[in-house]
Amino acid sequence: MSESYAGKINRKLLKKRRIINAAAGREKADLVLKNAAYVNVFSNEICHGDIAVAEGLIVGMGTYSGETEVDMAGKIVLPGFLDAHIHLESSLVNPTEFVKAVLPHGTTTVITDPHEIANVMGSDGIEYMLQATEGLPVDVRFMLPSCVPATPLDESGATLDYRAIDSFYDHPRVQGLAEMMNFVGIIAGDDQPVEKIVAAQAHHKKIDGHAPDLVGNDLNAYIAAGVYSDHECHDLKDAIAKLERGQFIMIREGTAARNLEALVPLLCDKYSERCMFCTDDKHPSDLLEKGHIDYIMKKAIALGADPITTVKVACHNAARYFLLNNRGAIAPGYLADFVVIDSFEHFHIEKVYKRGKLMVEEGILADFPAPKVEPYLTERAHSTFHLPILTAEDFTESRPRGVLGMVMGEITTTDAGYADHIDVENDILKIAVVERHKNTRHIGIGYIKGYGLRSGAVATSISHDSHNIIVVGASEADMAQAVNRIAELDGGIVVWNEGKSLAEVPLAIAGIMSDEPLVTVNAKLEGAKEEAFRLGVSRGVDPFMTLSFMALPVIPTLRVTTRGVFDVISQSYV
Amino acid sequence: MSESYAGKINRKLLKKRRIINAAAGREKADLVLKNAAYVNVFSNEICHGDIAVAEGLIVGMGTYSGETEVDMAGKIVLPGFLDAHIHLESSLVNPTEFVKAVLPHGTTTVITDPHEIANVMGSDGIEYMLQATEGLPVDVRFMLPSCVPATPLDESGATLDYRAIDSFYDHPRVQGLAEMMNFVGIIAGDDQPVEKIVAAQAHHKKIDGHAPDLVGNDLNAYIAAGVYSDHECHDLKDAIAKLERGQFIMIREGTAARNLEALVPLLCDKYSERCMFCTDDKHPSDLLEKGHIDYIMKKAIALGADPITTVKVACHNAARYFLLNNRGAIAPGYLADFVVIDSFEHFHIEKVYKRGKLMVEEGILADFPAPKVEPYLTERAHSTFHLPILTAEDFTESRPRGVLGMVMGEITTTDAGYADHIDVENDILKIAVVERHKNTRHIGIGYIKGYGLRSGAVATSISHDSHNIIVVGASEADMAQAVNRIAELDGGIVVWNEGKSLAEVPLAIAGIMSDEPLVTVNAKLEGAKEEAFRLGVSRGVDPFMTLSFMALPVIPTLRVTTRGVFDVISQSYV
Repeated sequence: MSESYAGKINRKLLKKRRIINAAAGREKADLVLKNAAYVNVFSNEICHGDIAVAEGLIVGMGTYSGETEVDMAGKIVLPGFLDAHIHLESSLVNPTEFVKAVLPHGTTTVITDPHEIANVMGSDGIEYMLQATEGLPVDVRFMLPSCVPATPLDESGATLDYRAIDSFYDHPRVQGLAEMMNFVGIIAGDDQPVEKIVAAQAHHKKIDGHAPDLVGNDLNAYIAAGVYSDHECHDLKDAIAKLERGQFIMIREGTAARNLEALVPLLCDKYSERCMFCTDDKHPSDLLEKGHIDYIMKKAIALGADPITTVKVACHNAARYFLLNNRGAIAPGYLADFVVIDSFEHFHIEKVYKRGKLMVEEGILADFPAPKVEPYLTERAHSTFHLPILTAEDFTESRPRGVLGMVMGEITTTDAGYADHIDVENDILKIAVVERHKNTRHIGIGYIKGYGLRSGAVATSISHDSHNIIVVGASEADMAQAVNRIAELDGGIVVWNEGKSLAEVPLAIAGIMSDEPLVTVNAKLEGAKEEAFRLGVSRGVDPFMTLSFMALPVIPTLRVTTRGVFDVISQSYV
Repeated sequence: MSESYAGKINRKLLKKRRIINAAAGREKADLVLKNAAYVNVFSNEICHGDIAVAEGLIVGMGTYSGETEVDMAGKIVLPGFLDAHIHLESSLVNPTEFVKAVLPHGTTTVITDPHEIANVMGSDGIEYMLQATEGLPVDVRFMLPSCVPATPLDESGATLDYRAIDSFYDHPRVQGLAEMMNFVGIIAGDDQPVEKIVAAQAHHKKIDGHAPDLVGNDLNAYIAAGVYSDHECHDLKDAIAKLERGQFIMIREGTAARNLEALVPLLCDKYSERCMFCTDDKHPSDLLEKGHIDYIMKKAIALGADPITTVKVACHNAARYFLLNNRGAIAPGYLADFVVIDSFEHFHIEKVYKRGKLMVEEGILADFPAPKVEPYLTERAHSTFHLPILTAEDFTESRPRGVLGMVMGEITTTDAGYADHIDVENDILKIAVVERHKNTRHIGIGYIKGYGLRSGAVATSISHDSHNIIVVGASEADMAQAVNRIAELDGGIVVWNEGKSLAEVPLAIAGIMSDEPLVTVNAKLEGAKEEAFRLGVSRGVDPFMTLSFMALPVIPTLRVTTRGVFDVISQSYV
């Protein structure tokens, strides 16, 4: 597949001539959407006319005839939607299954940060995701994970400095450096995070931010360092402070964090140019029940936002921010990514086109080939568990340990004192994090109050951000067996009782994603939740998602790590 | 000056740390503009606070102290202005002198198309301009000339295909491909112009347009080919047709073409995001008397445009279009390019800062070093005339030739019939174009009516777009001597009578630019005009500018080329 520069120019010349001929009307277009009403993001209005497509690109609007003509009378044609920031892994399915889920919702481009898989597999995880997304009918673009591990307290599967990610900037689908969560390190001028920013800038790439509630001169320092966006704004004041300093605001409405209602006033003439939409993470049931960017758009319009502004924010602004200059608009030269809806009021998606190909019609998805991942990477992704077989003794510990006090509906915890044994009657359970990347045999043990389990154990290998195995149990033996079962499965979620598995959600890709379809994964997940509830887990708790944040040593107050219980406030082990 | 990648990252890290430290307030800033009111192009309002600068960049707005502090109370601070499209050569001075002229007017970045010098010197002309603009206190960025020669009818100094300009795309100050004037060739899908577009796209570069009054599917074809902007719109309808198809509109207000009044309605919420300002060409007296982008801004505001919108169009929009993402705004990380004015009403420019350095104070310019141009290029630029010494016989011609009918105040001509001799009483003068690049001895002869000369000859080596020598005379002997004198001068403008030079404007850089200061050039030019008027040239005619368009065989009706009189309408020699 080697091609000289002159050969490349010749090839592009031929393709361009076909585009020009179709645009000028000398040749029939491949596809014409006849009599369309379409949103024009440049003149900020609804325009009317035929939309002609050739070679996967829009070639003109006006009067055209085509090999295929589809009457669009009475419909509204929109550009395809973009998610400006998501961790694809949060869907728990592989990228092909993710695409099957979101394409019917009108998403045609997503910007993913493979932060989760990189914490497990390092640069191999980035490469795996690049290969697993190649040629999909939703364009998947990448921001390179900036914080692997997320904190020095984490024992992750890899440590990536700027050199480790540098060569990925040359990949045509890499747009920049993903959310720089280590804003403290940036403001302090620490080598590692600042090197990552200057390297991204040296490659002329974008750098996304993540700095909740940062204000004043510290915010200036973070932005002056080169951080161009933020998706953590949860109130208008925070958002405007960042916007007026030049950051682009990604209005986030995902599964864990939902900021649209607070930020919908940004969708006005004064501010909307600097805004886009993102989800950050979307769990299976949320994707299936609500949708994706379309859900955010519907909600924004229902909250009073102007529909044309909303469309522009959902399509055009993110495309421009990421320098994806041929998408996010209906105009000559732009990708023929279309979403056909009935009206802004009902926002029923009737058709979705990707590069001029009809991919979705009334919810029915056209077939497409799954990308090929090199065998060594597939094998590497499916064998990420490296730990010994554990027994009850590994979880037995007579010294007093800190108790994580759960807060209903939150992922923060309180400091609930100390305990030295499981006490089911008082809802004191044992919680442990088992290092599983490098066979270090590190097991951090603590206690948790408020989870409600009365018997057995619940374990998961989704455990932010290092994705070690986290397990809660009423019995050390069940804890050990549940962890062993997860290792056998090469990852997943297990509900275990008295020596037996009650429910399992296998997540054999790096221990965080399934090879099965979204609907199957969701069914297994919901089934497993029911089993966990039956074992006593409080109905107000998400049995797995809540657990998956208990090992993230950046959220107050107490967390459990592979090295024991950690107090985030005092930054010390307790 | 070789540096490893790791070395480069380390160097940038140190600089970045200084920026962060100053932004966070841990170290004093280099410069603080205290108590500033400044235009915020993100929140579209006037903000207030100190503006802190370090390492030539804005590091923060808020409360800061600095090594230098300047009180800005009562002033308005604006980002530096950008000219989105100019041919620097039109100023008739070298880039250093141009910078001295425009920096006091608040211009801190210009995008130049070295179309004129490239038509004389080919790629050496581009290289000369790159070297002659390196490190100037107005950042000069380049769009590569797309049409050299401008038409196949021209005998220019060079012919540049896509290969000839390709390596320039790697230069850090090259932003793309300049105005693709050959819209007919693009719409026809001709190899040469379309190759240039696909090559520019292969380098991920911008492509500017030039397509007056192009409409409908032809306009679609031109835009679908990859032309992202237009600066030729002279009415609102034309501009909106292009804007709504995705082109950016450069509102042009220069010396020859002035479109602001017609296009000022674009400066509104609905359209302004897609607009910027440009001058295209600025002649010496116009620069001296009116100014530059500041003149356009003042006029726009006087015509009723919102001042903040006007500032944004003059600074931010062009910067974003050209992917110059660290300029055109007052925000952390942006270049410390400031224009300090008293008020929007008076728009008196009190100070201009470039990268944090005070360059202009009350019209007084700070010293700066002129860029060094390699000697071989300087020599090459100063020896571009290759023609024999001419005599009256070379201009003697008894056959009848077409008469170019001048139209007062226009550069179009009428077909004024034939003539076979000079007839001063009836204002029939001889006009000739002398090929001067390649010693071809081609001399195209015709007649002109309406110029008014009664004796002697007027000649200039500014003759669009090939810059051969164009000469008008009442006597063949004076014509020959005037041309000889221009060759002796290595280029310029000469007013000649009865064997003697009456006035000269030497333009020894490629025959189109002077080595002298703008004021000197302007004085010589105005003096020469007076001499021309004294020889009878009609006062309503610009004696030299009008001539300089008479050899451009794209403007109706008759033109004179090195091959004779050409009818642009019938596309044939007459």
